[in-house]
Amino acid sequence: MKAEIITIGDEILIGQIVDTNSAWMAEELNKIGVGVTQITSISDTPVHLVNALDDAQLRADVILITGGLGPTKDDRTKKVLAEYFQSSLVCHKPTLEHVTAFFTRRGLGVNQLNKDQALVPECCEVLHNPSGTAPGMWFENNEKIFVSMPGVPFEMKSIMLEAVLPRLKKINGGGVIVHKTVQTIGIPESILAEKLEEWEDALPDFIHLAYLPNPGQIRLRLSAFGNDETQLRKAVELEIEKLKKIIPEAIFGYNNDTLAVVVGKMLMEKKATVATAESCTGGQIAHSITSVPGSSGWFKGSVVAYSNDIKTDVLKVNPNDIEKHGAVSEQVVRQMADGVRKLCNADYAVATSGVAGPDGGTEEKPVGTVWIAVASPVETIAQKFTFSNNRERNIIRSSQTALDMLRLVLENK
Amino acid sequence: MKAEIITIGDEILIGQIVDTNSAWMAEELNKIGVGVTQITSISDTPVHLVNALDDAQLRADVILITGGLGPTKDDRTKKVLAEYFQSSLVCHKPTLEHVTAFFTRRGLGVNQLNKDQALVPECCEVLHNPSGTAPGMWFENNEKIFVSMPGVPFEMKSIMLEAVLPRLKKINGGGVIVHKTVQTIGIPESILAEKLEEWEDALPDFIHLAYLPNPGQIRLRLSAFGNDETQLRKAVELEIEKLKKIIPEAIFGYNNDTLAVVVGKMLMEKKATVATAESCTGGQIAHSITSVPGSSGWFKGSVVAYSNDIKTDVLKVNPNDIEKHGAVSEQVVRQMADGVRKLCNADYAVATSGVAGPDGGTEEKPVGTVWIAVASPVETIAQKFTFSNNRERNIIRSSQTALDMLRLVLENK
Repeated sequence: MKAEIITIGDEILIGQIVDTNSAWMAEELNKIGVGVTQITSISDTPVHLVNALDDAQLRADVILITGGLGPTKDDRTKKVLAEYFQSSLVCHKPTLEHVTAFFTRRGLGVNQLNKDQALVPECCEVLHNPSGTAPGMWFENNEKIFVSMPGVPFEMKSIMLEAVLPRLKKINGGGVIVHKTVQTIGIPESILAEKLEEWEDALPDFIHLAYLPNPGQIRLRLSAFGNDETQLRKAVELEIEKLKKIIPEAIFGYNNDTLAVVVGKMLMEKKATVATAESCTGGQIAHSITSVPGSSGWFKGSVVAYSNDIKTDVLKVNPNDIEKHGAVSEQVVRQMADGVRKLCNADYAVATSGVAGPDGGTEEKPVGTVWIAVASPVETIAQKFTFSNNRERNIIRSSQTALDMLRLVLENK
Repeated sequence: MKAEIITIGDEILIGQIVDTNSAWMAEELNKIGVGVTQITSISDTPVHLVNALDDAQLRADVILITGGLGPTKDDRTKKVLAEYFQSSLVCHKPTLEHVTAFFTRRGLGVNQLNKDQALVPECCEVLHNPSGTAPGMWFENNEKIFVSMPGVPFEMKSIMLEAVLPRLKKINGGGVIVHKTVQTIGIPESILAEKLEEWEDALPDFIHLAYLPNPGQIRLRLSAFGNDETQLRKAVELEIEKLKKIIPEAIFGYNNDTLAVVVGKMLMEKKATVATAESCTGGQIAHSITSVPGSSGWFKGSVVAYSNDIKTDVLKVNPNDIEKHGAVSEQVVRQMADGVRKLCNADYAVATSGVAGPDGGTEEKPVGTVWIAVASPVETIAQKFTFSNNRERNIIRSSQTALDMLRLVLENK
């Protein structure tokens, strides 16, 4: 079974929003063995949607459509779908009751725009939207399935998880794709490709390898195609075991593991805690840590020391060292790590101090210069890095590198 | 002039990465009056790319292609393009020199995979890639323009900004689209639509309105189509003036303004500073503030007080109040705001304490319960909110609401 995704909305085509829905949908479809052949973003005009529907059903068995179902006048998907399937719009009573209850519960009245959310093409099957007022719609036509859902991500996700994916899984039956991604950090893509060439060439035919580069990280995705999920998983694991021997220190996790998740697991195993002192990363390390559910079990807290006062007053950095060596220096970043470790009574601490940009660079310390320290019960280490001239990327690279240095300390590497 | 964007790579179709390139490209194209008719994500297979190229040139004048130019074996775009334009691959000497210098500067050797980056179809014009090793390629065929660029975002952006956009602008000449987005917060979409119905119906024909909802925020995008940019801008501003009178308190900014940017401007005007004390938001407020270049001028720092020790030891919250009222309470969040304001010697402070989830909820304080406080030189205010049961959304909503409360305090509203 092959699927296509059509996202509707001028906001994607003028670049106002990034289409995050499609990536989520594609990943969920892959999990049930449904490959995605194409993702198409089109404008909210009837003729464009009709053409996209005509094209998509030539390539795919299932066409998933998101967007254009809001209560406002710029949303026209429902009307176009009714015409496309030669059906008329009728009021769906359970949806009307749901919409009314939805607003009543929030102490709000129901206006005509809200009531119109309950109008659906007569030929469709309505899919309940537990998170919002626009229902999903399931159409079957010429042995093809068409599903229309709202574009609001959490509403789309509810409908997909509760109705669409279970049904498609049942219809699809056999045929499996198994993906596993190996997360690596610290080796540039071309050098990695050279190291892995022999291994890659020896992969079995049914396993496909892809390199997915991110700033500072390369993900290696292995995809195995076949019918027996257990066999495919075994074959993928076998290849990963070989890979581990080639690049042992660079692999930090698998699939959607983030460095924060991996570090958190290691700390929990050691029953240890961590704190962070952040200057140039400005809270990004704390944010990536606290995005992990349950991080309160191993994360004590963070001091974002953006001004020098806070470095000296809160983290007890020696003001003479700031004066003498500058805030971006080995002396200061070590004291920041030691200071926050003591302040928060944590077992481990990481600290960052650098020039994120766009301003603040000097000849000696250009934009992108970052000092990172990791303090442990045994010792405090510090290292200097030179990243790029882009603020956003410097913040991300610094945060990742700090967490990776902590990982290596926790692994005793 | 109409454009289409084709992104190549299985990683998008299996949902491993979100396509952020297209949104950026679409926005930049719109700025020079080039509308985007469709964005298509396809797999890295020759037949799919050929079909997508055939289709796209029926609808558009310019086809921008990203991805599939990496040094590794899963990248096949260059070979397919050479065949599509009936050309052969030849070595481009300046690119080979650039690639060699690129690796030498980093103290690395050049391998065959790197050298192959300099192979390009003979019929194309090479576009220099200052940020990486894969060059861009410009093709002209049957009065259509095709541009192929690497998929790595900052490499693509360099080539677009330095070569592609200036050329397209010159070729395109007249015909302008003017967009302006009004950022609102605090009014749900359907209520906003009702409030704005009369204004929306009275908009001139050449101005189009779109509602773009985000968690807790609705952006209103006005798009004006015509030939005279000055006239279009005037017409859009006139409509925004009318809008301001209908929803004065809900508008916090325009276009890509974030709450952090807006709050930063207000603080700079007042020559004032802010600090944050974050429990449930875990550094997200500090991170969104420090993502703004120049924020070191008005942001002192943050204490991410994830454990109660830090609330009492660092922020000087009374331990009895935590005992009596719990960490998620008005008493505690007020003391957090006052404490961090004093600690960081800031003029203003915001503090958050809540149950982000998925665990930690009780009957009295379910997941989504959040207390937010804002301290100013005059007074400290606090408010309770009940958001959702989704951790990620609770963190975002809480951070936005905290910054919006600060905005209203700074506006004396």
